[in-house]
Amino acid sequence: MPPADHHKVLFEPIEIGPKTLRNRFYNVPHGTAYGTQRPATWAAYRAVRAEGGWAAVSTEFSSVGPSSDEVPLHSSDIWDDEDVRRHKLMVDSVHKHGALAAIELHHGGAHAMRRLSREPALSPSGLAPELPPPFGPPGTPKAMTRDDIERVQLDFVAAALRARDAGYDVVNVLAGYGYLFAQFLSPFHNHRVDAYGGSLENRARFWVETLARIRDAVGTDCAIATRMSVETQGPWGHTIDESVALVGMADRFVDLWDLNVGSVLDWASDISPSRLIPEGSNLPVFERIRHATTKPIVGVSRWTSPDLMAQAVRSGVIDIIGSARQSIADPFFPQKIHDGRIEDVRECMGINLCISSLDRGNLTCAQNATAGEEYRRGWHPERFEPLARPEVGVLVVGAGPAGMEAAIGLARRGAEMVHLVDAAEHLGGHLRPAVELPGLQEWRRFIDHRSIQIDGLPNVQFIGSTRLTAADVRDYGASHVILATGARWLSTGVTPQTHGPLEGVAEGADWIFTPEQILVHGRRPALGSRVTVYDAEGIYMGTGIAQLLADEGFDVCIVTPHDQVGAEGDLTLDGPAVRRSLHRSGVGMHRAIVLTAVEQGRVFGAGEFEEPFSCETDALVLVTMRSPLDQLYGELVDDRAALTAAGIEAVFCIGDALSPRPIAEVTFDGHRLAREFESPNPAVALPYKREPLHLELPDGDLFLGGRSR
Amino acid sequence: MPPADHHKVLFEPIEIGPKTLRNRFYNVPHGTAYGTQRPATWAAYRAVRAEGGWAAVSTEFSSVGPSSDEVPLHSSDIWDDEDVRRHKLMVDSVHKHGALAAIELHHGGAHAMRRLSREPALSPSGLAPELPPPFGPPGTPKAMTRDDIERVQLDFVAAALRARDAGYDVVNVLAGYGYLFAQFLSPFHNHRVDAYGGSLENRARFWVETLARIRDAVGTDCAIATRMSVETQGPWGHTIDESVALVGMADRFVDLWDLNVGSVLDWASDISPSRLIPEGSNLPVFERIRHATTKPIVGVSRWTSPDLMAQAVRSGVIDIIGSARQSIADPFFPQKIHDGRIEDVRECMGINLCISSLDRGNLTCAQNATAGEEYRRGWHPERFEPLARPEVGVLVVGAGPAGMEAAIGLARRGAEMVHLVDAAEHLGGHLRPAVELPGLQEWRRFIDHRSIQIDGLPNVQFIGSTRLTAADVRDYGASHVILATGARWLSTGVTPQTHGPLEGVAEGADWIFTPEQILVHGRRPALGSRVTVYDAEGIYMGTGIAQLLADEGFDVCIVTPHDQVGAEGDLTLDGPAVRRSLHRSGVGMHRAIVLTAVEQGRVFGAGEFEEPFSCETDALVLVTMRSPLDQLYGELVDDRAALTAAGIEAVFCIGDALSPRPIAEVTFDGHRLAREFESPNPAVALPYKREPLHLELPDGDLFLGGRSR
Repeated sequence: MPPADHHKVLFEPIEIGPKTLRNRFYNVPHGTAYGTQRPATWAAYRAVRAEGGWAAVSTEFSSVGPSSDEVPLHSSDIWDDEDVRRHKLMVDSVHKHGALAAIELHHGGAHAMRRLSREPALSPSGLAPELPPPFGPPGTPKAMTRDDIERVQLDFVAAALRARDAGYDVVNVLAGYGYLFAQFLSPFHNHRVDAYGGSLENRARFWVETLARIRDAVGTDCAIATRMSVETQGPWGHTIDESVALVGMADRFVDLWDLNVGSVLDWASDISPSRLIPEGSNLPVFERIRHATTKPIVGVSRWTSPDLMAQAVRSGVIDIIGSARQSIADPFFPQKIHDGRIEDVRECMGINLCISSLDRGNLTCAQNATAGEEYRRGWHPERFEPLARPEVGVLVVGAGPAGMEAAIGLARRGAEMVHLVDAAEHLGGHLRPAVELPGLQEWRRFIDHRSIQIDGLPNVQFIGSTRLTAADVRDYGASHVILATGARWLSTGVTPQTHGPLEGVAEGADWIFTPEQILVHGRRPALGSRVTVYDAEGIYMGTGIAQLLADEGFDVCIVTPHDQVGAEGDLTLDGPAVRRSLHRSGVGMHRAIVLTAVEQGRVFGAGEFEEPFSCETDALVLVTMRSPLDQLYGELVDDRAALTAAGIEAVFCIGDALSPRPIAEVTFDGHRLAREFESPNPAVALPYKREPLHLELPDGDLFLGGRSR
Repeated sequence: MPPADHHKVLFEPIEIGPKTLRNRFYNVPHGTAYGTQRPATWAAYRAVRAEGGWAAVSTEFSSVGPSSDEVPLHSSDIWDDEDVRRHKLMVDSVHKHGALAAIELHHGGAHAMRRLSREPALSPSGLAPELPPPFGPPGTPKAMTRDDIERVQLDFVAAALRARDAGYDVVNVLAGYGYLFAQFLSPFHNHRVDAYGGSLENRARFWVETLARIRDAVGTDCAIATRMSVETQGPWGHTIDESVALVGMADRFVDLWDLNVGSVLDWASDISPSRLIPEGSNLPVFERIRHATTKPIVGVSRWTSPDLMAQAVRSGVIDIIGSARQSIADPFFPQKIHDGRIEDVRECMGINLCISSLDRGNLTCAQNATAGEEYRRGWHPERFEPLARPEVGVLVVGAGPAGMEAAIGLARRGAEMVHLVDAAEHLGGHLRPAVELPGLQEWRRFIDHRSIQIDGLPNVQFIGSTRLTAADVRDYGASHVILATGARWLSTGVTPQTHGPLEGVAEGADWIFTPEQILVHGRRPALGSRVTVYDAEGIYMGTGIAQLLADEGFDVCIVTPHDQVGAEGDLTLDGPAVRRSLHRSGVGMHRAIVLTAVEQGRVFGAGEFEEPFSCETDALVLVTMRSPLDQLYGELVDDRAALTAAGIEAVFCIGDALSPRPIAEVTFDGHRLAREFESPNPAVALPYKREPLHLELPDGDLFLGGRSR
């Protein structure tokens, strides 16, 4: 099928300086934690985005030299020949699929970590960076001299030339997010009184000069882009009015403007969780820039809807759709729009497990289990190896994330019969009630996508409202059984901190609630009650329930043993806004408190210094720990003879029923089982490929040898 | 010189199973963040400890397989052939210097990060781990089945065989710190009702069986050790009584007991900051173990004194001195004791920048600037390349850490004249008054070591109580000038959060204090005053001054914009204890507060939700930001003609005067300048060697290819 008429504008080629984008989908710079340190994982990951139809595919931040060494962060450095070899693997892989390859040249300035280079941090004015310990580099940076400015500019030029030599089509100079150039642009960091500080023109000088020198160096071999954060929710950046003027100052050296918002203390504006910020919300600020340049603009705004994308391009505010997260969730997004297969798109749900997993050392995605596994496990997001023996009957018990994912994977591999059975009426498992929490509506996309796929696959059938016993399973007629029966919240007050029940918690007490009782069974305390939510987990459930009950008129407080309320939210970037919202709703927050006993009317605990804590309450919600619902699995595998008699060859347990984990991991679990269904022992993951990096022993003494790699 | 008589016991060889330690100094497992991911850095670092006389040199934790994949932590995995090649580089480098090579085999269990393997976490009983977000892996681990136990045991056996093949002499099975075996040993984690839970013997079964299987597998090719944390300050481990019994249960499979204390939430007990725990404090608990085994015991206890070490060995409580930090600070510690050169020892000062820098991705040391630089920059801790042109006269202005280090380095390189001049009477710079803060006395070792070295070097001379002007410097007769004039605390209330002065702060107001005014000039508020310490930095100064003033009887509170008081202390492991001490001393603590204005009698601020904060106070101490004292440098380099006329060839600025940083980094700065004094541009670091890891392009499509590396 051709693209829908109203999407055709997204497939018009566009020139960016000397290069041509084949369409309007631009995979903008975003971190992976693979980078040049995991070059094969990285190249395969990027290449799949090119194959999926993106017109350009970019690196993450690529440091230009040791004064911006970013260890332990995951920069794709471009400092030397070995780096260039690794970049070239990515570039060639991207080119093979007809996309342009882009590099984002980076200098962190005051924020550069410099753990290996140990050079002093560079900054406009020697002001300590705004990131608190332990996130930022400790100490006060050096105020750059003219020599430093010259040296960094030469580093940028050298890096640009190396990038050209590696085959990059686009050299994108990062001037956003509060890094070095942005520090010069911002009066918060730049207090200089020389030609590089003061007036906006002076503050722009370092950046504009660098762009000019790169232009001189690479000529028309590469298009030149620059990435600017045009607005920031705090004092750290520059105003939108200044951004408009800045675009005018540098426009003659730039082939493509790459626009976003935010800063290092304001990532939530850019990598916006769906809990907080709607799609397309950056357009009004981008519109201001539109009037300042006729050059193409690529802009991000958590785009997922092709209709909104086409509208944005047709409006002329931006020319090109910039996307990171939609490309993670669905690398073949452009291809699917092109082919009119909207229903097959895996929309990014804005849950931001990508960013929290990146911070933990490996980018993963809730919607797309293959992200990052393209090389490591040889998984292609759209291609599945047919089963050697498709004549299997697979019964999947439990239609939550893991069960749905396994069923779809096996159906795609051609299993003759896949039945997905759930006690609930609808698909979704624990996720279905969770999406009713305030702000989580877009998480429903996880279910919607899989629901459409299941509807479209003739060999998979969903059977709801059916609770199976072990005997039912044995009698089902399946050759293979997959238990994906999920988990439940403990009702005993057992927490990660104590591993024992909470004194005073009696099962079935009418003033004590679990999340399921609130969300699935609709139980509520008496109207107007005081409610304490004890959040010993720290992900979304505790804050979500607190907000829900506050919205319903209860008098709510949260108690958590962690140092921060909803601590995991500081990794998914919704933490501060969620706490602000709770505060606005009158929710009291008590952190660093471990509850020690409860009784109707009051909870008791102890603080950081063993100081007693107590709080009056009419009801208690325990968000403490999830435990697998694996009884059915146990009953089945404990009677091997009965299984054999029933003709069941294998029984597997996956997802939360195996080990309750974040949705990206349980989805991976289901996906992996489908991919490895015919391995010798599908219950355990096959070894994955490690990076093809070989130690070449240095000659002679390790202390000798030259300075270059 | 031979060793002193009372140290000779430290040089008696001792058998550990089939192997012999040449003396009693054992470099126990400790992290570096180099590991097998930075194999050349790692091997050179470990080799230097062997060269310095340690009888055994160990790896850090080495994961045995994907179910304990520890990315993003820095495990030295031993999973496959490429891993073995990297380990062999380390082993061979260590053997070259006559030491035994030891490996610590590790499985993290519930704490394993599994970011790349994405396997479910394994645990005895499926209880969520105690580390809060974002530190621990999110979710609830799997309760291990018998199959899981078997699989992990086979992983340990396979890893032990690989270790043997790599040449390791000692296989050390980690059963401490709350990782997998310790989880089985502890009733906190182990709630099993099968043969692997319940009684202590049952809880020990998994570990004892594994030791037995490793013994069977490696026979007498390797000595077998096991590392146990015999006591823990919290519910997470097992009691010392249980430890005694456990030693009895496994003794027949063990050639060496490697003892320590602590757990993942209690690292401070093991990697004890000198601020908290004295040297040798573990001996009483080790003595309990002594009665349970006749096998050799290696025990750690922040050892730095050879007298205490010899006494511990003579007492028979332990047989071998276990050390990590002293080996970092002075790799040649055993050699120096052997040679009777006690005065040359660089004693570990217990400041724990090693552990905080490890957490930041690269182990460094305050006392030893060469740690980790052995391969990267080719620096040997005891050997300095003679200057090509020793006939230089070097004037170092400022005898703080950077200045002392540069002077000593240049003197060791044979510079004919090095004068180290300071306005203060004594060596030490800003560190000298800082060591007067409560608990920081051992930090004085930094100064003491350098003081002794300077006394012993004929070509370096310290001249105190002498403040030099630019004219004085020019007239000094030096050919080279190094400015190491340090930094000062800002008195304006400029913070990293605001970058602007604090409203109401007037220079010279008698109720406002900087750390220097308190520590150097001895200024104090009126006795009994209420004092607010505003700590916008978060390292040791804010909490140190608060404790000092509280001890002196002031009514103190700390206000910090950070989410935690003394936040950096959570990386150096003194944070919780320092806060407990402040609490005990009645110091009020207000976190997440940015001060917005002050007036005599009151400070005003705003909290996380912009809610107003205010606090009555008679005095305010501003611990906000350090700024370089570089005026003298500026005056000198601004008049190049005068320098030339004075015969001064070069002027350098180093240390805090260049960019105020933690002491490990400014010491590095001084050291680097000495090492690179004759490079083309000594002001900028020479490029350092990167790892000799070469990308071998996979054949064909990145998606194809086998599963092994």
